[in-house]
Amino acid sequence: MTTSRAGASRAAMDELISLAKRRGFVFPSSGIYGGINGFWDFGPLGVEVKNNLKKLWWDHMVRFRSDVVGVDTSIIAHPQTWVSSGHVKSFSDPLVDCKVCKGRFRADHIDSLPCPNKPSLTVQACAKEGKGEGELTDIRQFNLMFQTHVGAVQDVSSVAYLRPETCQSIFTQFKNIQGVSRQKIPFGIAQIGKSFRNEVTPRNFIFRSREFEQMEMEFFIKPEDSESQKWYEYWIDQRYQWFLSLGVQKNKLRLRPHAPDELAHYAKGCTDIEYEFPFGVSELEGIAQRSNYDLTQHIQGSGKDLSYFDEATKEKFVPAVIETSLGVDRTFLTVFCDAYAEDEVDGEKRAILRFHPQVAPIQVAILPLSKKLKEGAIKIEEDLRRYFRSDYDEAGSIGKRYRRQDEVGTPYCVTYDFESLENQSVTVRERDTTQQERVSLDQLKNYLSDKMQA
Amino acid sequence: MTTSRAGASRAAMDELISLAKRRGFVFPSSGIYGGINGFWDFGPLGVEVKNNLKKLWWDHMVRFRSDVVGVDTSIIAHPQTWVSSGHVKSFSDPLVDCKVCKGRFRADHIDSLPCPNKPSLTVQACAKEGKGEGELTDIRQFNLMFQTHVGAVQDVSSVAYLRPETCQSIFTQFKNIQGVSRQKIPFGIAQIGKSFRNEVTPRNFIFRSREFEQMEMEFFIKPEDSESQKWYEYWIDQRYQWFLSLGVQKNKLRLRPHAPDELAHYAKGCTDIEYEFPFGVSELEGIAQRSNYDLTQHIQGSGKDLSYFDEATKEKFVPAVIETSLGVDRTFLTVFCDAYAEDEVDGEKRAILRFHPQVAPIQVAILPLSKKLKEGAIKIEEDLRRYFRSDYDEAGSIGKRYRRQDEVGTPYCVTYDFESLENQSVTVRERDTTQQERVSLDQLKNYLSDKMQA
Repeated sequence: MTTSRAGASRAAMDELISLAKRRGFVFPSSGIYGGINGFWDFGPLGVEVKNNLKKLWWDHMVRFRSDVVGVDTSIIAHPQTWVSSGHVKSFSDPLVDCKVCKGRFRADHIDSLPCPNKPSLTVQACAKEGKGEGELTDIRQFNLMFQTHVGAVQDVSSVAYLRPETCQSIFTQFKNIQGVSRQKIPFGIAQIGKSFRNEVTPRNFIFRSREFEQMEMEFFIKPEDSESQKWYEYWIDQRYQWFLSLGVQKNKLRLRPHAPDELAHYAKGCTDIEYEFPFGVSELEGIAQRSNYDLTQHIQGSGKDLSYFDEATKEKFVPAVIETSLGVDRTFLTVFCDAYAEDEVDGEKRAILRFHPQVAPIQVAILPLSKKLKEGAIKIEEDLRRYFRSDYDEAGSIGKRYRRQDEVGTPYCVTYDFESLENQSVTVRERDTTQQERVSLDQLKNYLSDKMQA
Repeated sequence: MTTSRAGASRAAMDELISLAKRRGFVFPSSGIYGGINGFWDFGPLGVEVKNNLKKLWWDHMVRFRSDVVGVDTSIIAHPQTWVSSGHVKSFSDPLVDCKVCKGRFRADHIDSLPCPNKPSLTVQACAKEGKGEGELTDIRQFNLMFQTHVGAVQDVSSVAYLRPETCQSIFTQFKNIQGVSRQKIPFGIAQIGKSFRNEVTPRNFIFRSREFEQMEMEFFIKPEDSESQKWYEYWIDQRYQWFLSLGVQKNKLRLRPHAPDELAHYAKGCTDIEYEFPFGVSELEGIAQRSNYDLTQHIQGSGKDLSYFDEATKEKFVPAVIETSLGVDRTFLTVFCDAYAEDEVDGEKRAILRFHPQVAPIQVAILPLSKKLKEGAIKIEEDLRRYFRSDYDEAGSIGKRYRRQDEVGTPYCVTYDFESLENQSVTVRERDTTQQERVSLDQLKNYLSDKMQA
């Protein structure tokens, strides 16, 4: 048997997408109606991985800390939110239309996007070759926020937006949350929730979709350069360590500080945590020193006082923030790509997902060696199910069942055999080493708990 | 001290809403911009309660069962989904306009809604008294689905809807999910997620809002009356028991079977689980025998085969379903109303939330008797935080701190005093009895674990 941990570089994206669909991690939305571009559904195993990642983030960022609190705000907020934040004015992509094929493209992508009519050429090359550059229209700005109307009247007064990011409600509710939580600066407010962006060209599977889920945190601090720099470095390290704690391979992760000319005028610094995906190194999370720009915008937009009064120093100020902003779907894609490995048994290539036990959708599978042993095996499964995400499988040869579990990343398989009937012990097989160990039934729960924590 | 467990009947809704806002459970969305009707934000304590309820539902419905799997589908799906389901045609409310005040009202609510201009009169009475009934327009149908446009072209071809319920994607993905999960009928598919309805008159706090979260399950069965009746009764009982397991008072819950003339033509039966809210007895969850109507609609709409082949009997059929449909926000409101109680100490009325320990946002608070004891108390809190949702509070008298915890429903307070320094023991105070017990520090975790499970 030869094994390679593919991570990003060797695994073709197509194989990952195929595995995701075949085993119920991710499907295209609305497949029976031909799909809808940029929307995805998470299947039985996918939703478990997603829930695990959200719980691990929440534990790390909120539950196990005393200086960060959570919120869960609505996707549709007052539209003035997005005027103040600047999104109505400038959250847009540059677009061009092709007058020949009527296609609509990101102006900054025409030198790489294939032409829908002549896929061998880029949009730009096609326009040049076919009829001259005049076939593409001038660039115009396309706002990426989805619009809707709230209430029974459909006119300009009822326009509302699906939020393009979760963090703005953290700013608009800053005073309320600080008040009720009795937190003192420095402290953070964290949120997990859906966001929507009407991307012109969704792509790379779930990497850039139109509906996605974010995990964002705003950490409020004194608006002083030294404080900002200190907490910025702290949060970069915290967030980087979190990915390592999920078992993500260190050599696939990058820290990329933005160059000064990449920064927004109000930002003092921004660092991306990047991952080496099969389609290239791409942004996974951004950690930014955003100064007190956002709160100041909402103070101006609402006329409300969102400043903070420091009881100790008797100072009043508008706090600055360090923001950490991550996509759940991108985290999913990262652990999925990173866990993907292939091995060859008897010349046949097979997939393994080497998920961390805390991330794996199934943590332990119980397999009776024969259907005659069903009763005892089911009893074990019902017991373990209270403590671990478990599965029961009696279909096919034991080798085939191990393979089925390897393919979805189950770290431990428990085999119940005829000897188990006699001496109340089972065989535990470890996915990554394929080593097997005999464990007494009364020790099984503790044995597995220890392994999963390690 | 006199105590009353208010549950629904005695607690004024205004007091509950005030407590929810004051202590950070629920705020109106976008308050600094004057709010947006029908949208709510959950604060630091609210998000914890909501997460607890979702986890308890998921455990009960998915995790601890072997015959139900989960999914997490997109909020925006292919628009044909809503044509097939019947929502585009008939998911609407009857509306009338008042020609005088330009108000827009639910036609079926005008005999109870107050007139915006003359709140002492109902809309109907005002129309009759003022200028005669002619002042209200004829009834017209208003579709409750929020519309948007997907992609860079805004025309009829790009219209899409925010889902008004989570279950339709369970039907459109039925074949995929059944295939990948290798489940055999009978089995269920469960989902938690946001839904949106453009309610004309959102009301009763978070009971009827425009953005809300659902927990729905479709249980697929053979399309035979006896099977349908059996599983219908089973799921009514399961769902009812679940509310009892959250500590909801039995005498506030009702089971209301729909009368035959209330049922949709395809439905064989429907039972609401109702709760006695302060504003009246209202629907909390619906359990319905929906026959195989939904799958049949999607088969017709898509031209795809969504039937099931039974390997054992060699029969092919379109499964019927039993649906259980519940709102997270309504469950929140139920446990919140149900936990609410008032007591009087020295003539002063105070609020207590008698949350079940599994529902409570904070399970244990650690309180040093003096700030001098801070170090030891914080150490205990850091340890307990790994196992329980915990809080630390050193501000104010111990009595005031107990009250603060009672008001947010913390079932246990641990007081660290000068004696603790000497003999490594603490006082544990129980919210509901106010009884105190001395517990050795090395037993504290187990003591609390036992109490929380009870």
